[in-house]
Amino acid sequence: MSDAAAGALMAQEMCQQPDVLQRLLDMPATQSGEVLRRITHASPRFVLFAARGSSDHAALYGKYLVETRLGLPAGLVSTSSYTLYPASMRLSGTLWIAVSQSGGSPDLVESCAAARRCGALTLAVTNSPDSALAREAELVWDLQSGPERSVAATKTYTASLLSLWLLISTWAGADIESAHRLPELAATALDVDVEPLATRYRFASRVLTTGRGYAYATARETALKMMETCYLHAQAFSGADLMHGPIAMVDRDYPVLAMVPPGPTGEALAPVLQRILERGAEICVVGPTPGPPGTLQLRCPGGATDSLMPVVQILPLQKLAHGLSLARGYDPDHPRALSKVTRTL
Amino acid sequence: MSDAAAGALMAQEMCQQPDVLQRLLDMPATQSGEVLRRITHASPRFVLFAARGSSDHAALYGKYLVETRLGLPAGLVSTSSYTLYPASMRLSGTLWIAVSQSGGSPDLVESCAAARRCGALTLAVTNSPDSALAREAELVWDLQSGPERSVAATKTYTASLLSLWLLISTWAGADIESAHRLPELAATALDVDVEPLATRYRFASRVLTTGRGYAYATARETALKMMETCYLHAQAFSGADLMHGPIAMVDRDYPVLAMVPPGPTGEALAPVLQRILERGAEICVVGPTPGPPGTLQLRCPGGATDSLMPVVQILPLQKLAHGLSLARGYDPDHPRALSKVTRTL
Repeated sequence: MSDAAAGALMAQEMCQQPDVLQRLLDMPATQSGEVLRRITHASPRFVLFAARGSSDHAALYGKYLVETRLGLPAGLVSTSSYTLYPASMRLSGTLWIAVSQSGGSPDLVESCAAARRCGALTLAVTNSPDSALAREAELVWDLQSGPERSVAATKTYTASLLSLWLLISTWAGADIESAHRLPELAATALDVDVEPLATRYRFASRVLTTGRGYAYATARETALKMMETCYLHAQAFSGADLMHGPIAMVDRDYPVLAMVPPGPTGEALAPVLQRILERGAEICVVGPTPGPPGTLQLRCPGGATDSLMPVVQILPLQKLAHGLSLARGYDPDHPRALSKVTRTL
Repeated sequence: MSDAAAGALMAQEMCQQPDVLQRLLDMPATQSGEVLRRITHASPRFVLFAARGSSDHAALYGKYLVETRLGLPAGLVSTSSYTLYPASMRLSGTLWIAVSQSGGSPDLVESCAAARRCGALTLAVTNSPDSALAREAELVWDLQSGPERSVAATKTYTASLLSLWLLISTWAGADIESAHRLPELAATALDVDVEPLATRYRFASRVLTTGRGYAYATARETALKMMETCYLHAQAFSGADLMHGPIAMVDRDYPVLAMVPPGPTGEALAPVLQRILERGAEICVVGPTPGPPGTLQLRCPGGATDSLMPVVQILPLQKLAHGLSLARGYDPDHPRALSKVTRTL
């Protein structure tokens, strides 16, 4: 293998993100135009997302966008309803968006085919426009991120976020100008020094991540990165869900990573942080401004609009997962027990 | 206080479940009839669920039922889209089901009111028919479970499951006769001896729960019970999601509780159990038949249909959470940092 150094692939692919985002922003209008034309023509009343792993977190973000920018009801699909139980769905008026880097997981391919048969308009958002998923779907949105070889997805995650944002914003008739600062903000976000935190969490056995609204997707994706590259028992909660039970398990041995972007998404987390501090846990705020007294901070540039912050905010956290994995003596490119394409039914 | 012994309230309310289920089955047709008449008259094309905590797991179960029995697309609501971001939704043709024991959480009340204004038909499934939530909703389904005083929900959880099953099955025109064995099966399920497992997990610091399809709701609810009463770092994964990353963190120090009911839901978990065993973790199968060699078993009666098994299967797990909490020296009736009605926005 040419990339022998542990974590070299993931590092390389993380660094490509400003370019990947720029490529999506430079995408000729003809490419997205056809997808949008078909969607607006169908005028769906409801949007379903199907995805697994990191793509599922991009789908969660997409669901928020559909709800808040289009005012349409949306849901995340239980693929087992399509593969495990013999369901015949009434999906006319539904847009079905399958998000998958590889386009190869059999449950996604099969459920997408079933959705199309049941009357949904189907769209594959994928980095593999020649995949089985892309063949089953009526419409394809190419993530154009180049090959992703590290098992831990990085560039295809942010490419999925921006793609969904571009698609849904344009569909909503909103201005997409604000996205043009993303590549520059991404480069700044990737420049953060994660070593002090990686050292601090070297011997942690668990971590909790939290965020609300758009930032909940970031909390989920961070926890997954920590599980798959650092073997940390990482768990994500929306701020509200944390209050409905799980807060009881939090004690002073808990490191908490809290997503606090500027604006309403971050402000809504303030009472949650207060409760976590009362439990004696150690909080690290991920955002452009320091948190309450006694908290640590992982710096992340502001400057993106509220709905675009997830594209920027995940970057220092990817870098932290990578650095922490190395600090713990692991190779984030080759997590134990995983392969790049997961085959589940 | 009259119930001074630690865990007395939760024990009492757990034991009431066969009676609570019987009461729902004996419910006069007039009571459910009006709700159903209004729903079938509206003929919704899409169902949204809004809930938090244990009720959110009942909602997840309800979502599966809507998908598999009605063939309608369904989603779990992000209440923050209604409370955090100023969204105006187009919800005509949508049935909105809010599930809440207390009917008092402000985000549920507020989002239900917003959904009604936006054109949804709204239904509150609650144990508090005089609550703010019940007042905001057009339709009310009373769980009739009697007061629930333990912070950890037990009887209102199984009552929510059965209520959603009755509602959705009747709506689908299906026979509900199979539910009549539930009170008897519940009594058997509650008779299981959990002490050996409570002793075994006395010093565990974490636990993983897993299940697929209908049983995923059981895995989620089990993890929550373990977090709030035992302060265990418990995390639930659907079998498929576990394969997409988190399996990497699983090692031989992981106790795994696997939901293996009879039928397709349990069979689908077999390859997942194999992968977990390969990682060296210790599995306890929750179901009527023993698991693969080398696994433990928490017995749970079979005899319910696949879609009704969650009502039965959670019972020995509630009892395990209760017993383990006591074994660890805690009081499951009064988890630290929690109160019965959680107020989040």
